[in-house]
Amino acid sequence: MVRLELSTELGYEVGAPGCDFIFNIQAAYTPRQIVVSESLILNQDLPSTGYTDPATQSRFLRLHAEPGLFVLRYHAVVELVHFEARVDLLPELSLQALPGEVLPYLYPSRYCQSDRLLNLASQQFGHLPLGYSRANAICDWVQQHVSFQGNTSNSNTSALDTLIERVGVCRDFAHLMIALCRAANLPARMASGMDYGADPILGPPDFHAYVEVFLGDRWYMFDPSGTAIPMGFVRFATGRDAADIAFATIYGSVIAAQPVISIRAVPNSQGHLIEPRHVSYALSTDGY
Amino acid sequence: MVRLELSTELGYEVGAPGCDFIFNIQAAYTPRQIVVSESLILNQDLPSTGYTDPATQSRFLRLHAEPGLFVLRYHAVVELVHFEARVDLLPELSLQALPGEVLPYLYPSRYCQSDRLLNLASQQFGHLPLGYSRANAICDWVQQHVSFQGNTSNSNTSALDTLIERVGVCRDFAHLMIALCRAANLPARMASGMDYGADPILGPPDFHAYVEVFLGDRWYMFDPSGTAIPMGFVRFATGRDAADIAFATIYGSVIAAQPVISIRAVPNSQGHLIEPRHVSYALSTDGY
Amino acid sequence: MVRLELSTELGYEVGAPGCDFIFNIQAAYTPRQIVVSESLILNQDLPSTGYTDPATQSRFLRLHAEPGLFVLRYHAVVELVHFEARVDLLPELSLQALPGEVLPYLYPSRYCQSDRLLNLASQQFGHLPLGYSRANAICDWVQQHVSFQGNTSNSNTSALDTLIERVGVCRDFAHLMIALCRAANLPARMASGMDYGADPILGPPDFHAYVEVFLGDRWYMFDPSGTAIPMGFVRFATGRDAADIAFATIYGSVIAAQPVISIRAVPNSQGHLIEPRHVSYALSTDGY
Amino acid sequence: MVRLELSTELGYEVGAPGCDFIFNIQAAYTPRQIVVSESLILNQDLPSTGYTDPATQSRFLRLHAEPGLFVLRYHAVVELVHFEARVDLLPELSLQALPGEVLPYLYPSRYCQSDRLLNLASQQFGHLPLGYSRANAICDWVQQHVSFQGNTSNSNTSALDTLIERVGVCRDFAHLMIALCRAANLPARMASGMDYGADPILGPPDFHAYVEVFLGDRWYMFDPSGTAIPMGFVRFATGRDAADIAFATIYGSVIAAQPVISIRAVPNSQGHLIEPRHVSYALSTDGY
Repeated sequence: MVRLELSTELGYEVGAPGCDFIFNIQAAYTPRQIVVSESLILNQDLPSTGYTDPATQSRFLRLHAEPGLFVLRYHAVVELVHFEARVDLLPELSLQALPGEVLPYLYPSRYCQSDRLLNLASQQFGHLPLGYSRANAICDWVQQHVSFQGNTSNSNTSALDTLIERVGVCRDFAHLMIALCRAANLPARMASGMDYGADPILGPPDFHAYVEVFLGDRWYMFDPSGTAIPMGFVRFATGRDAADIAFATIYGSVIAAQPVISIRAVPNSQGHLIEPRHVSYALSTDGY
Repeated sequence: MVRLELSTELGYEVGAPGCDFIFNIQAAYTPRQIVVSESLILNQDLPSTGYTDPATQSRFLRLHAEPGLFVLRYHAVVELVHFEARVDLLPELSLQALPGEVLPYLYPSRYCQSDRLLNLASQQFGHLPLGYSRANAICDWVQQHVSFQGNTSNSNTSALDTLIERVGVCRDFAHLMIALCRAANLPARMASGMDYGADPILGPPDFHAYVEVFLGDRWYMFDPSGTAIPMGFVRFATGRDAADIAFATIYGSVIAAQPVISIRAVPNSQGHLIEPRHVSYALSTDGY
Repeated sequence: MVRLELSTELGYEVGAPGCDFIFNIQAAYTPRQIVVSESLILNQDLPSTGYTDPATQSRFLRLHAEPGLFVLRYHAVVELVHFEARVDLLPELSLQALPGEVLPYLYPSRYCQSDRLLNLASQQFGHLPLGYSRANAICDWVQQHVSFQGNTSNSNTSALDTLIERVGVCRDFAHLMIALCRAANLPARMASGMDYGADPILGPPDFHAYVEVFLGDRWYMFDPSGTAIPMGFVRFATGRDAADIAFATIYGSVIAAQPVISIRAVPNSQGHLIEPRHVSYALSTDGY
Repeated sequence: MVRLELSTELGYEVGAPGCDFIFNIQAAYTPRQIVVSESLILNQDLPSTGYTDPATQSRFLRLHAEPGLFVLRYHAVVELVHFEARVDLLPELSLQALPGEVLPYLYPSRYCQSDRLLNLASQQFGHLPLGYSRANAICDWVQQHVSFQGNTSNSNTSALDTLIERVGVCRDFAHLMIALCRAANLPARMASGMDYGADPILGPPDFHAYVEVFLGDRWYMFDPSGTAIPMGFVRFATGRDAADIAFATIYGSVIAAQPVISIRAVPNSQGHLIEPRHVSYALSTDGY
């Protein structure tokens, strides 16, 4: 069990006449992601509305900030009780066998236009043995064909753009992998969270976007950008793609400060300090 | 109360080695759309799996058909107990006041890229009084700026394409209205169903795609293509856009026959024959 | 020297109030494509305006047809005096050394958005030795990654769509090859013409779109769709892409009949009947 | 006659192994744009290749710069002998009457996909009287529906994007106007030059992109962004769109400095100082 302590500070200069926010920056409560403690502090004295999606456990925080400085600070201690699976034993399910609630993750979405990638998915991945290894082959293909480079994409960039331009950041890698998975009949969704163990080359801890693929009886994590350590992912939200799980959706005029983010491993409930590390088995924080 | 009797026959010549289908062609069960009776007959002796989405009541029917002729016949009698509202009393909710489960319908989706239409929505609809009339102004704008013409769009056509090319079928009108609503902060979703009272010029009853906008405390129907009578809509499925609610999603090689569709008004539970007609109030089959 | 006799019949039912046409269906006059004889017959008694682009020798035929049946018949005998080059001796020129009039063919165009393919071109072709073989590697890559299939593209389909969807017809293969060549700094243009020696599987002679790449001191032919025999190409027009060289650009309402096309080898000026065949050297009908 | 003195300084830090450039930053020589004097100074001792397109008079300057600082300084004195026309006397030509060399400017190009805007152009501008006023109506429409805002577009932004997002800079306004003109059968092209009399709000003199439409017997200037004074435009290059006339097309790795630009009116050949101003007649620097 990995225990992580994390904190986030988001600051905005809010213009008149104030601004509505929808945040997705709180750790999801799942049976395998235990939120040991958490706090949310706002510098303005504001009412806020929480909503937890019953299907995904994503937590939406809505509030209306007044003009002027608005600062949100979130702090949490989270214990991850990963479900671990041998990759050679993880099957793909037939379309008939998938749980009904998984079906939407086969369909195309705003940034993952899988309907246009059927031929490509068939060419590249159609002949591979079914199972975890096929999802992993898609993950590897994306990593090999796309270069990680900051400031090369924007909020309009979709999986198709990344397929064309072959460059992007974690969000773009995730969108392309998801689109290819769905085109290959593998249910796939996007997860946002915090990026423990960021690559020393790529800089400090940051928000991170990664992928979950449904195999066997649950969702397993993949990191197509290859820039982080899945064992250290604290999950905030999951959805069809970035449209569903933006850290902050902002309705109004603001100037945003650079987020201040920290995350570190701390001793777990049994007193052991376990650092996230790359492992050869599949990891899930979903289900029981 | 309108009572409608409808039947659908879908035929496919299925190629080897068989084909998986996901259908969305059964009337949704809602408190205001009572399915009095229904039957589903397949010409092949096949197991099928039903799934009803708890949030939308959309019914997914999955099955694997064998090579050869596959025919599905659906028949239902449905009683519609419309919720009726005076349009001048229907408010828009603030972002803070929306039910949490409505939030995803503010976000862009595969065919409704509302994130790119913020300026246009603001220019055209930002200054209008809030409420039903604003949603209706968007509906009218789409109807005035787009021409209905068959065979002008395909499964890749999105709201942006329709905005550019100004031509399409009911699905395209719906996508553009949904995208503009979301860009104007109005939650909007797509509904599929059967099109009672098709325009005499536009031909016989057919599957139909229309729009629902969340106003007050429920979803109200709009028909931006202007080709049908909302009071006569039997709802099959609702979703973010056509990606979620295709009549048939097909995984395999088939040759499809033209669907055979019929619908007619029949005497309702009180013995009255009520024909759907255009009305000046807002209609919903959602909620209690 | 290959001598070909070709004829084309284009028929239209022209709606009121008549229709303007721009045709590009006449054999270009070049020093290496000798038009021995030709005739153009219209069933309506119409004035027409010819224009030959001085840079490309493309011949534009403009006319205004009256409502009713309009039929255009073109017949020509063309002798091809190919310039032949050993492929291992054909260099790429540096950007500084290219003739000025070739520069526009390095730039992106309507259907060949090479500016977005720089990374892909660099990944796949950047490390290859310069010269004919690099252009040929691009031609092969397109042929291997795209499937030829009728009715899978339309007049809006661009190189990017074909890269995404991996399917198309000759025009789409040509656009993708051109876009990749330009992204790799190889000047490339589109040619239209008649397709002698159509693949027996793919059917009878037809209009054809292919590619010319500037190497050494002239433009050489490539056929990325692999469905025809370059030695048998009769060139009508060349341009940046299909936007420039459509067989017929139509301003008005018409119903078009299926074109009737024939082409056959006939004895050349020396009395020899030479059938076009696949060859291992590079061919050009450009220049002296 | 307006006489303008202009200077440009472009600076680059060129990375190894050097960099190829194609510049379009010299004043075109036309019978109505007399280059009285000019100088081009490079800080590196480099060979450069000039090429003037015979059809457009655009001047392409090619050179290969070595690693390190590379600075290009261009200085010119230009006298503009505008052709002036009464706008109510300027006709549109029929398709049959257009000079052949104008035809390509009816076709779609990389950033001006006029083929997709036929319905919109017909809806908005199809019923207007033919002539200059129709081109001007398109110019006005673009200006009214698009907001000028820096840093809202990039090198991939096309007319379709601007139609969707309703925001951009001068280049984007020009692309949208050109696309709409071509969709309305008005030949239109893009011009680049220097922007005398920049709007005091929008800042100092800068490079500028504007539009030329073919009316009567020549190309007339339009400024859809409304940010400059056409009488003060010094034309560098014209082409189908920005793909053809980029100030600098760069093949290699550089860090560019902010261009240093100045322009001012000076006494003309008759000793009069004439400041460019807005006028009610049409202006051309094309032809005799």
